[in-house]
Amino acid sequence: MIILGLDPSLSCTGWGVVRVEGSRISHVANGQVKTDPKAPIAARLSHLVTALDAVLAEHRPDRAAAEEIFLNKNPQSTLKLAQARGAVLAACGGAGLDVREHAARLVKKAVVGTGGADKQQVQAMLKILLPGTAVTGPDAADALAVAIADAHLGGR
Amino acid sequence: MIILGLDPSLSCTGWGVVRVEGSRISHVANGQVKTDPKAPIAARLSHLVTALDAVLAEHRPDRAAAEEIFLNKNPQSTLKLAQARGAVLAACGGAGLDVREHAARLVKKAVVGTGGADKQQVQAMLKILLPGTAVTGPDAADALAVAIADAHLGGR
Repeated sequence: MIILGLDPSLSCTGWGVVRVEGSRISHVANGQVKTDPKAPIAARLSHLVTALDAVLAEHRPDRAAAEEIFLNKNPQSTLKLAQARGAVLAACGGAGLDVREHAARLVKKAVVGTGGADKQQVQAMLKILLPGTAVTGPDAADALAVAIADAHLGGR
Repeated sequence: MIILGLDPSLSCTGWGVVRVEGSRISHVANGQVKTDPKAPIAARLSHLVTALDAVLAEHRPDRAAAEEIFLNKNPQSTLKLAQARGAVLAACGGAGLDVREHAARLVKKAVVGTGGADKQQVQAMLKILLPGTAVTGPDAADALAVAIADAHLGGR
């Protein structure tokens, strides 16, 4: 079972792929897709789709997951985030994948053991759970955490 | 000059294509893309992209435009709308098009002459501006209104 975790955002979308065999989870690949902040939004969104299409084609995940979207206090940030998420989800849908949504607290709980864990704790735990993995950056780390959480949360 | 107007939404995205020659605007085509409310959101967004890709390939617009997104009082509705918009904009970006955004008031003003016009006035004016056009439904009408407004608002 191959699981793709996603951390969509307009400026930098993180992705992480893990393999699940029984109770064993291993790292496959991770990365971040950055878009040019000076480019028109349609071009930036299209770039996200193209990059995700390549990830989907290469790794052929069986499942995909993302954190539930949160409502930022800044409505413009929320709108950008939601539009990026729409493009990323459309790419997954095009590959026949649904994207399961997990609450941020559940993701932290699945990875660290507590829903109140901070980013540093999550990243430290990733190093233990996926030893030797070179994580591209914080958005790829979040995406790997979602993939691991999805593996734990299983077929719900 | 061919202009594509868009009225993105998850349940039903309207589109309308007009041709502009000098000061003359004529209707080319319009339609609505409905998605299955029972399908997963990724599949619905992918369906929007596939349908828009077909519209873009058939009509090869020179420009695209949509109304500025508004923040609904219901955050979940806003998130759905923004995700649909993200998928639709990504499709346009993939065709090399930017999507210009016009305030709803400016669209109404360009079509009816007053920013406070209601939907009925906009639809009545469409019948005058694009005589003989069979409009698929209210979302296609909104999309045609955006295309006409974009033609009037020109190269700003």
